[in-house]
Amino acid sequence: MTTTGGTPGAGSVTVIGLGDMGSAIARTFVDRGFRTTVWNRTASRTRPLVDAGATAAATAAEAVAASPLVVVCLLDSTAVDEVLGTVDTAVAGTVLVNVTSGSPSQARSHERWAHERGAEYLDGKIMGDPPYVGTPDIMFPFSGSRGAFDAHESTLRVLGGIEYHGEDAGGAAVEFMAQVAVSYELLIGYLHTLRLVQAEGFDLVKFTERVAGSIAAHPPLLTSMAKAVKSGEYGPDLGSLDVQAALMDDMISHRESLGVEAVRMREVKKLMDRRIADGHGDQGFSSLFELLKTQ
Amino acid sequence: MTTTGGTPGAGSVTVIGLGDMGSAIARTFVDRGFRTTVWNRTASRTRPLVDAGATAAATAAEAVAASPLVVVCLLDSTAVDEVLGTVDTAVAGTVLVNVTSGSPSQARSHERWAHERGAEYLDGKIMGDPPYVGTPDIMFPFSGSRGAFDAHESTLRVLGGIEYHGEDAGGAAVEFMAQVAVSYELLIGYLHTLRLVQAEGFDLVKFTERVAGSIAAHPPLLTSMAKAVKSGEYGPDLGSLDVQAALMDDMISHRESLGVEAVRMREVKKLMDRRIADGHGDQGFSSLFELLKTQ
Repeated sequence: MTTTGGTPGAGSVTVIGLGDMGSAIARTFVDRGFRTTVWNRTASRTRPLVDAGATAAATAAEAVAASPLVVVCLLDSTAVDEVLGTVDTAVAGTVLVNVTSGSPSQARSHERWAHERGAEYLDGKIMGDPPYVGTPDIMFPFSGSRGAFDAHESTLRVLGGIEYHGEDAGGAAVEFMAQVAVSYELLIGYLHTLRLVQAEGFDLVKFTERVAGSIAAHPPLLTSMAKAVKSGEYGPDLGSLDVQAALMDDMISHRESLGVEAVRMREVKKLMDRRIADGHGDQGFSSLFELLKTQ
Repeated sequence: MTTTGGTPGAGSVTVIGLGDMGSAIARTFVDRGFRTTVWNRTASRTRPLVDAGATAAATAAEAVAASPLVVVCLLDSTAVDEVLGTVDTAVAGTVLVNVTSGSPSQARSHERWAHERGAEYLDGKIMGDPPYVGTPDIMFPFSGSRGAFDAHESTLRVLGGIEYHGEDAGGAAVEFMAQVAVSYELLIGYLHTLRLVQAEGFDLVKFTERVAGSIAAHPPLLTSMAKAVKSGEYGPDLGSLDVQAALMDDMISHRESLGVEAVRMREVKKLMDRRIADGHGDQGFSSLFELLKTQ
């Protein structure tokens, strides 16, 4: 293997895994002048990158040995375990940056594996799609070794927006899962509501434009809710629970009359009723947090 | 009763119901120079408004007779029925603007009642809190008589942002319930996720600031989803369902490991699995809409 190409000074980087996301990452490094080594289980995926100036390694171990910074982007954590198993101690002395999706505990487990073999570890998650790699419209939360992050920050910044979430290697996964959860709850609620809007005969696209405007107004509300939860002092945000519970009843009846799903509304109503029964009907929506105890 | 006060040309308006919201509405009309007549079941609530320049009517019927435009803002539709029962035919020739919370069918029922007594009817809903009445930071969707809306648009605009949602008197309530539903789904999902973030030991306020940034990026996604649903052509938004289902499994396991509620995630996962089983694993999140049939 020869490691040709790259802009002097831009440094060397290896990318393991060339699915859509891994390929976009490798291509971005190549385009920014990095001496880029790539490996993929199905070797044909390396072709367009080699044409663009990357070097294809014959094995994952060889790819890892080629650069001080190794970005791993595979299908899932099982694939990471399999590939890293073939690399084993060849990883010593590198910084392993794993951006494969997975849980916080999987991230912590990969970190232990890397430390046992003399490598540093950064876990990364990806909030955005492959076409946005290399632009500010994609976000990479990272966590793990502070020293490794500081040393390679300028290289990682080539990929898009980056954030460091602390020494706990699981931090990036926590951030990712929490952010994605909020997004999915918004989106599934929105999708159910489109059925209601459709059943009532209103235009879905125009309604959505108005929803977009309403959502854009939420950040100050979210911030005040976070502060209420943190302090345990719950003002009547969104109005008092007494008033909100009556509204929730109206919303549930309306949905039932149209045959539209009201599971979440009924659950919210139950929480409101419990809170009111506990004598907190004058508090607001954020006070429901008190009932969401973890086990 | 004497109807004194008001700026010449600003017109007359009556406000029935002086809870926090009704009082804010009446006060806004007074401050903008309208000759304002008020009535409330508990008469003492009229005092601050009379001090500011409003006129208190002795009965609801007398209040209605005092102005061509009558705004009704009561606790709920039951209260509206009770008060309007005492007014009966005194409503003839007025435009009744009912901004009390209630369902689309209640709005249509109030409209019938008004028409039978020779009044025009506009239904309004209120998206915002009393302190924001009279500012652009509160939104009033209206529906019902187009002629009445056009004739009184400049007066209604005094209250805040206004939108007209068509001749169907239920339109404002549909808009309100649909908008509020999307907001509640976002907020309860956010609140559950705060438990996860807290359980993992991260700062709730800093996390929320990042959520606010993510949410602000959602409008283009929502618009593309609405267009996909409207056309029935579902691209891989948020990635393919095959990939998203694997992510959903990770998120569910993570929540279960922390004892954090995963009801919504499990429901979304079931929808994804059904869609994949039907051969649509290459489509995106918006295609789940096809499974959300109304009954």
